[in-house]
Amino acid sequence: MCSRAQAAGTGAGSGPFQVGLLGHGTVGSAFAQLLEERAEEIERFNGRRPVISGVLTRAQGSFEEILSDADLLVELIGGIEPAREYLLRAIAAGKDVVSANKQLLSQHGEELFEAAREHRVRLRFEAAVAGVVPVVRVLEESLSATPIERIHGIVNGTTNFILSEMARGSTYAEALAQAQRSGYAEADPSDDVSGRDAAAKMAILARLAFGTPVHLNQVRYEGIEHLQGDDLQYARELGLGLKLIGTAERRGGGLSVRVHPAFLYAGHPLASVSGPYNAVTVESETITEITMSGPGAGGRQTASAVLGDVVSVMLPVAAPRAPVSRLALVEDVESAFYVHMEVADRPGVLGAVTQALGERGVSIKSVLQRGMGENARLVMVTHLALESSLNAAIERVGQFDFLRSAPRMIRVIEEEFT
Amino acid sequence: MCSRAQAAGTGAGSGPFQVGLLGHGTVGSAFAQLLEERAEEIERFNGRRPVISGVLTRAQGSFEEILSDADLLVELIGGIEPAREYLLRAIAAGKDVVSANKQLLSQHGEELFEAAREHRVRLRFEAAVAGVVPVVRVLEESLSATPIERIHGIVNGTTNFILSEMARGSTYAEALAQAQRSGYAEADPSDDVSGRDAAAKMAILARLAFGTPVHLNQVRYEGIEHLQGDDLQYARELGLGLKLIGTAERRGGGLSVRVHPAFLYAGHPLASVSGPYNAVTVESETITEITMSGPGAGGRQTASAVLGDVVSVMLPVAAPRAPVSRLALVEDVESAFYVHMEVADRPGVLGAVTQALGERGVSIKSVLQRGMGENARLVMVTHLALESSLNAAIERVGQFDFLRSAPRMIRVIEEEFT
Repeated sequence: MCSRAQAAGTGAGSGPFQVGLLGHGTVGSAFAQLLEERAEEIERFNGRRPVISGVLTRAQGSFEEILSDADLLVELIGGIEPAREYLLRAIAAGKDVVSANKQLLSQHGEELFEAAREHRVRLRFEAAVAGVVPVVRVLEESLSATPIERIHGIVNGTTNFILSEMARGSTYAEALAQAQRSGYAEADPSDDVSGRDAAAKMAILARLAFGTPVHLNQVRYEGIEHLQGDDLQYARELGLGLKLIGTAERRGGGLSVRVHPAFLYAGHPLASVSGPYNAVTVESETITEITMSGPGAGGRQTASAVLGDVVSVMLPVAAPRAPVSRLALVEDVESAFYVHMEVADRPGVLGAVTQALGERGVSIKSVLQRGMGENARLVMVTHLALESSLNAAIERVGQFDFLRSAPRMIRVIEEEFT
Repeated sequence: MCSRAQAAGTGAGSGPFQVGLLGHGTVGSAFAQLLEERAEEIERFNGRRPVISGVLTRAQGSFEEILSDADLLVELIGGIEPAREYLLRAIAAGKDVVSANKQLLSQHGEELFEAAREHRVRLRFEAAVAGVVPVVRVLEESLSATPIERIHGIVNGTTNFILSEMARGSTYAEALAQAQRSGYAEADPSDDVSGRDAAAKMAILARLAFGTPVHLNQVRYEGIEHLQGDDLQYARELGLGLKLIGTAERRGGGLSVRVHPAFLYAGHPLASVSGPYNAVTVESETITEITMSGPGAGGRQTASAVLGDVVSVMLPVAAPRAPVSRLALVEDVESAFYVHMEVADRPGVLGAVTQALGERGVSIKSVLQRGMGENARLVMVTHLALESSLNAAIERVGQFDFLRSAPRMIRVIEEEFT
């Protein structure tokens, strides 16, 4: 027998948690920076501080030394070799590993999974599919007992960006150039626009969802290069929007895994996913459907998914975490407000209301006034204001003799991420 | 030292995995049924077969016997006592526990978490918040290293259903009656419509996201009872939609947790969530934002989240799972198709195309024809057809002399869950 404390995984040792890093490109360097930023917080809830104990690049570092020092290896080299060899050697040495390598996992996944099982190490790869959207974790854990019928995914942010631009009237060539200027597409975009990148991700998702080995070669894919702008125009008249959709689904006792452009009706959960975003819908009789969405790319976002995997290996699995902070609960917060009031329809009313609000620091963003006989309805949306300020202003307004019924207020949430 | 096989948690024993069940209402009986349906599949990837070893109801069963037989206890009684006492006794006996009890967790969470830490057992509660949407797991694990700024959630399906009906023109009273008829609202809906149910869930989410203890009493909440239909009408003119929104966010070095009706602009990720659904958006500088959505209620859906927790406790954490099946990869699948062709603008063309498709089993759902001088554009959407049938039909069409350019095809995904 052994205690649960020991049982909690790699994190149960002591001293810093040594992370060996293979690769130092866009994601690798973003990961190293994010790990340093978050190390103190991670130590606070985890008991160990993660540190980069060694970095291997083409120009420097010794794989053997990095391996022998590390509690865990993070592979961010990409491509098949030498990433495959390094991962297999780390696994054989009994080290937990984290990888973001979709090419490798979709072509040599079974070999890696088998090695990890044999050596009883963890192999995590959240960042290989759908950026920060935690679909790997959800399929592996939350839905592991759920009989999944179908997965639909927008798993390539580059093509979703291009199709969003085309839906706004751009040609394919213009949209691709825009994606390249914005950093969403590589100089050579063929892996993305051909559908091959999405196919690799769907192979990985299909393996997780259906527990059946799927190789990239078994995934049929079509890209978006042949799409014409007028297809999107006609489709809009038919109430359809165009996405590059990956599908993995049970069909007649077997499994179909494929990637192709597809039109979606407006009500589909993926229809509203625009720009360089990823989203995955999982369907099952027992859960109906779950949809998860978020940014599909970006070095810092991908690094965040990698760090999530690292911490999941460090985390003691047994017990809930202790509180890490005692934040004060704030009562009076800023918000925009919708304010509805019935007033007598006479000159000066709007001015008096506006002044009462303005004196208490509440300014108006938009107003709608509508007459209804002797009275009028006044509907306003304010800019951000403290709730206490708005309440004081409404109290003042409540004293005006032109008011016909008590004002009603509802908060408005501004779109802050755009 | 101990081996990883032992380290894998409760699941590392042998024989059936004994699940003691407290409570046998809607969710309890759905859970017992789902567990029986899925036991064989779970045994296949997990090595142990989960069985219900005992059920405690008000009328029958002995808590002591159920506790002593069980590897894990599932609490689906609801309310504070005796659920609290049973959970504390199970934890003190070293048993892992799963609960769906939002009232208890939002009012006695710290006591339960502390007990679980002390006795090194796992306490899982995915089903307590947002139905099958795996937001608890994602916050606890995937995002545990992410500095979260804000959570917005639609965490009460009843009120979201009512507001969706009101947006379509119903009064509050009509919408509530409709929710009760559809089984989305209880005979006494006050916990839902007052915002208190959502407040309990936000207290739990805030604890997970910010690592700071939050009690239900610290959450300010407003309900939807006072909303007027015309507020929704005016708001629509201003481009706003109305939801009952739970918020937990950092504000000026502290934390604000609150629930109130709020207007959202059309671009907000929660604006398109309609009907008895739940959705949660998590915002952070490192991830931008992740949104997760799915059905918020239903006995079978909630039972599915509970079963996910049970299996997560059984799962060996160390290594990837072996394949559980070898499904054949299916090549020829059914789909609806958009077909675009340029044809000579003369009589009989549409008939010839329709007949060529029909002879190969492809029928037309909608057609758009548009003249452009001597030629016309013909855009069609088909009903479901095998890809091989569609290809054969298009090959036939390609032989017609009235065709002016090669036909283009794009698949259409039908909305299958409605």
